[in-house]
Amino acid sequence: MDHYYALILAGGGGTRLWPLSRKKRPKQMLPLVEERTMFEISVERLQPLLPPERVFVVTGRDQVEALSTCAPQVPLENFIVEPFGQDTGPAVGLGTLHIKRRDPDAIIAMLTADQHIADKARFRQVLTAAAELAGQGYIVTLGISPSFPSTGFGYIKRGEPLAEIGGFQAYHSAGFTEKPDADMAIQFMATGMYSWNGGMFIYKADQVLAELARQQPDMFARLQQIGAAIGHDDYAAVLDEIWPTMTKRSLDYAVMEGAERVAVIPVDIGWSDIGSWATLLEVLAGDLNGNVSRGHAQEHLKIDTRETLIVSDRMVVTIGIEDIVIVDTDDVLLVCHRDRSQDVREVVSQLRDAGDTAHL
Amino acid sequence: MDHYYALILAGGGGTRLWPLSRKKRPKQMLPLVEERTMFEISVERLQPLLPPERVFVVTGRDQVEALSTCAPQVPLENFIVEPFGQDTGPAVGLGTLHIKRRDPDAIIAMLTADQHIADKARFRQVLTAAAELAGQGYIVTLGISPSFPSTGFGYIKRGEPLAEIGGFQAYHSAGFTEKPDADMAIQFMATGMYSWNGGMFIYKADQVLAELARQQPDMFARLQQIGAAIGHDDYAAVLDEIWPTMTKRSLDYAVMEGAERVAVIPVDIGWSDIGSWATLLEVLAGDLNGNVSRGHAQEHLKIDTRETLIVSDRMVVTIGIEDIVIVDTDDVLLVCHRDRSQDVREVVSQLRDAGDTAHL
Repeated sequence: MDHYYALILAGGGGTRLWPLSRKKRPKQMLPLVEERTMFEISVERLQPLLPPERVFVVTGRDQVEALSTCAPQVPLENFIVEPFGQDTGPAVGLGTLHIKRRDPDAIIAMLTADQHIADKARFRQVLTAAAELAGQGYIVTLGISPSFPSTGFGYIKRGEPLAEIGGFQAYHSAGFTEKPDADMAIQFMATGMYSWNGGMFIYKADQVLAELARQQPDMFARLQQIGAAIGHDDYAAVLDEIWPTMTKRSLDYAVMEGAERVAVIPVDIGWSDIGSWATLLEVLAGDLNGNVSRGHAQEHLKIDTRETLIVSDRMVVTIGIEDIVIVDTDDVLLVCHRDRSQDVREVVSQLRDAGDTAHL
Repeated sequence: MDHYYALILAGGGGTRLWPLSRKKRPKQMLPLVEERTMFEISVERLQPLLPPERVFVVTGRDQVEALSTCAPQVPLENFIVEPFGQDTGPAVGLGTLHIKRRDPDAIIAMLTADQHIADKARFRQVLTAAAELAGQGYIVTLGISPSFPSTGFGYIKRGEPLAEIGGFQAYHSAGFTEKPDADMAIQFMATGMYSWNGGMFIYKADQVLAELARQQPDMFARLQQIGAAIGHDDYAAVLDEIWPTMTKRSLDYAVMEGAERVAVIPVDIGWSDIGSWATLLEVLAGDLNGNVSRGHAQEHLKIDTRETLIVSDRMVVTIGIEDIVIVDTDDVLLVCHRDRSQDVREVVSQLRDAGDTAHL
């Protein structure tokens, strides 16, 4: 496993977790689920499988310092700057080039910093199995066993059995599907052949670069220009020049949907995408009435209150409410029905359109 | 009308309007309904009928300064201190003695500082009519036309017609009733003979003192001791000595229920007792969705939000909620179903029992 690396994408903003998640302190820097920040946890749960020296991070320029403070064990040179978000395709390409320069035989686990994984030991076990399969020339996806017919995730269909490896059954992928509608999601569940696409991929650096060259020759050519400058004085200048010319494209779309030799390992690791306040309410252990409290010096007095999330460092009193999300920050208060927590993103868009930078 | 005075009881705390209403800034000092404080409005709406020199106020020692700041036009010597709350009986007795000393022929309109009156002109008209009737030897109550079968107010039954006066029809009172149960309240409404007891009484000072002497000889004797000290150096000492020995008793119970020559004038003046957050939500004009916003520099973004009260000086975003009261102060946040706003009082009791003076 000496050639095994992690590439953590940590550039997102997490607008659905506004107003706690802000431009200057996005969700990966928040201690949302545990006492430590999401980013710190995503580095630590890889230990001892992937020591910090082999953890690389792609993020925005203005986030490097704060992320590095969250997880100082990750060497500063492992933080790879993307000038601005171009979706996951270019980000993974850039990160992969950097890691390959360090280690031409690198096998990479591409992960994100905004996911909660309850069973960390099993997560490391499946990463180990996936690395072995990647070494045999497969791009491996971890298929999350779906717990309900979600329309919020993409799905992977499993094909023929491929191998039993490290106690896990791997399958040939029978294809990726974008987020389905409700009927299709129910059908997917019924067949038992589908997993959620949690966006975790394990692959040999060479193989994904080859897929990029084949499927996205234009993007690949530009990435090559940037890659050639790594370690040279003009790297930053080249990056800033080339990056804006690339097309914004997700890794799923740019590579995975059309890739050859894709495998899926279905696994149950207690995975949750901390995508919204409603997810957090589901993931965190609540009191007897299903209420979840977060915040320092919290004095949350809940009277006839059920299934309610309270994020506040102040005294909060709730009476006779149910299924409500209350997020109380210094300058903004959000009170939202849990079923509407996806709509928080719209509010952030509105503020951005209105030029209200103070609250972003 | 030169002998006409107002006696405003402004000593209450308003615990149901917590956390905005606090020990140091009770509800009469809050600009709850209009831009000015409840107290200021209760003084101003008497003009020009009752100029500020003829407005007396009974309140707690620690509230005089703040109330005087709210309504500086009221002479400081018109603020009468009650050492602590002993309900309305002793408070009205004390205030009446002070006014009688100023003017032995005084007619007094006993009012409170926590009521909203939409039709201020009609309020002054009925006060004028009531004073005339009081001059004829009646203790006059203003009977609020009930808009629904409330179990939260006492009721007055009208008896035989007494007089038509200043455009109002006055009746003999056929008796006071404490807060009824729901069945009884519906029955009251059905008869058309009952009004809400809004706690506003108009009377000759002499007459109420005579009723006190007859019905509450012990309370009256103690009040006489205090009264004899008015204007003397030992007044404060006498007050502090005698006041605690009096029995806590409401004016309704101590005087009105057993009084002779009681009249009622039914009137519709858009009266509301601002007793709870739910009342405020009813009284204030809402937007198209029935939402009410209060606060400075308010930036309240309401998405699919209905019948919700937001009191906050910060940015508040609500999504997909209905019938909720949100009161956001510097150190406490309350989120409460509107139907449960009476329960706020219980929270204050709990805090008091827990010795949490910081939040009281």
